[in-house]
Amino acid sequence: MPSTRAPHIFFNSSPVNSPEVWRAALTRQLGDLRFTVGPDCADPDTVDVALVLRPPPQGLAAFAQLRAVIALSAGVNQFSADMLPAGVPLSRAVDPSLAEHMVSYAKAAVYRYHRRFDLFERQSRAGVWRFEAAKLNRETTIGLLGLGELGSAIALALVADGFSVEGWSRSPRTLDGVRTHAGDAGLQAMLPRMDLLINVLPLTEATTGILSSALFARCREGACIVNMGRGRHLVEDDLLSALASGRIAAATLDVTQVEPLPADHAFWGHPGVLITPHVAGIIQPESAAQQVAENIRRAMRGEALLNRVDLAKGY
Amino acid sequence: MPSTRAPHIFFNSSPVNSPEVWRAALTRQLGDLRFTVGPDCADPDTVDVALVLRPPPQGLAAFAQLRAVIALSAGVNQFSADMLPAGVPLSRAVDPSLAEHMVSYAKAAVYRYHRRFDLFERQSRAGVWRFEAAKLNRETTIGLLGLGELGSAIALALVADGFSVEGWSRSPRTLDGVRTHAGDAGLQAMLPRMDLLINVLPLTEATTGILSSALFARCREGACIVNMGRGRHLVEDDLLSALASGRIAAATLDVTQVEPLPADHAFWGHPGVLITPHVAGIIQPESAAQQVAENIRRAMRGEALLNRVDLAKGY
Repeated sequence: MPSTRAPHIFFNSSPVNSPEVWRAALTRQLGDLRFTVGPDCADPDTVDVALVLRPPPQGLAAFAQLRAVIALSAGVNQFSADMLPAGVPLSRAVDPSLAEHMVSYAKAAVYRYHRRFDLFERQSRAGVWRFEAAKLNRETTIGLLGLGELGSAIALALVADGFSVEGWSRSPRTLDGVRTHAGDAGLQAMLPRMDLLINVLPLTEATTGILSSALFARCREGACIVNMGRGRHLVEDDLLSALASGRIAAATLDVTQVEPLPADHAFWGHPGVLITPHVAGIIQPESAAQQVAENIRRAMRGEALLNRVDLAKGY
Repeated sequence: MPSTRAPHIFFNSSPVNSPEVWRAALTRQLGDLRFTVGPDCADPDTVDVALVLRPPPQGLAAFAQLRAVIALSAGVNQFSADMLPAGVPLSRAVDPSLAEHMVSYAKAAVYRYHRRFDLFERQSRAGVWRFEAAKLNRETTIGLLGLGELGSAIALALVADGFSVEGWSRSPRTLDGVRTHAGDAGLQAMLPRMDLLINVLPLTEATTGILSSALFARCREGACIVNMGRGRHLVEDDLLSALASGRIAAATLDVTQVEPLPADHAFWGHPGVLITPHVAGIIQPESAAQQVAENIRRAMRGEALLNRVDLAKGY
């Protein structure tokens, strides 16, 4: 049902998103609006749109007049169909800067290994000066797991920098300058050549635990892993074993099974593991507000949303 | 005097260059040649061309028939005019891959600071998870000291990645997308805006010790320094003071006053200093042999050399 009154937006708090910055950015786009900051909401049945990184603990069932849920993340595995009131669409906030953030994070991880800065960091602490000849970019082969919007942007940026880049996705994709693979056989064929694997897959039933002993066993001895996807893509004990055996030389993990990573976790202080506190890509209000506001307008007018998520596929 | 006999090449050993790989690469280019590996040479007066990273300890005076000296480095501060037999030209070996190596090293250093991987390394060791919002590339301003062949390549590569890039050189230069400055006033004007300074200047009388307290005092509080030039560009005690005061947040040093860096040096183990063992750019025989061979041919024919160095200017 179309509506011209000011939208009532429910915003669930999260440690990485400031409600005040979102409120200001959306007010600039939409003018008058009502903005309730969760997790609590006194009158859930007046809320039009829920804007959430994660659904509130009490769920969304009480939000009886909800027109849309907008996820403040590129991955939407935190949602399931039974979490949404019947018939309410889920869409993703799209931040044009997100791909730029992901590309820059990927480059930080790639160049660190490619130019052996991880080794030189340890040697700097230990007082060791040992010359080591550098490889040219084309001598390092990088495999992308996931060739969606973000994976493709990373793959193309690394190709532009002269790296040898291959990529894998569930269904076949083509990408200029990237040797692409699909399906399970494609993954098995690609893995043995990779010096470095970057995971940016969506988290689905099929991809949960994909970074496991079985996958590491197909990798080149001494390969490096970069997980920019979700914590549950990685079987953490399998990585510890692969690091211990030397099969995997090092890993950069932006996501972990439990975040923040618990204080007693074996990843902390591990010489082969770099933990970054989920900083690779965050949806920022400054650059995402325009698309979010457009979806709020569409929801108020009863129109189809942009960037709607198919929860059966998981993205 | 032109000559058609096989050239006699004197090659001075260094820790970073393999004489055998150079001998093989030059033999592929020139066919028959005599190749003496230094530092000693039994019959110096039969040597046609000296191929050296650094001159041998006994100097080159005994090389009475020398036609050319070829430096195996981009910087030539290890040579002075009185080191060369009168009238013998000095030229630089040019490696088309050198700029690629320098660009990739610069990106490793830049992205490490830009994405706070230096902080996350320390936090990974200490078991600290603390979210920190990332900056977009354009929000980081990088200043190049030196806009020669290598400095320009680095500046343009960083512009292509979306960083804000400025550059300084002795005489005015223009470079697409780079805000350039020249002379002392230009340097003073540029410094306060830089988040990160990369030094790739040639080492001359004017640039020795340029990275000093006076320069750091003009820098933005918390700026980072990357020295890819020569160790003597940096006043090492001044850097330690600037790190202690917080004026400079961190430094990546590929070169030091004494190399290898002495075991008791304060840079080892310093939390703000990353030492890399002079790996940013090395002239590699595989990619440089063609140009070196051409200069050996020219020397044998008594022709002018390519990439001749003007020792009065220092490059």
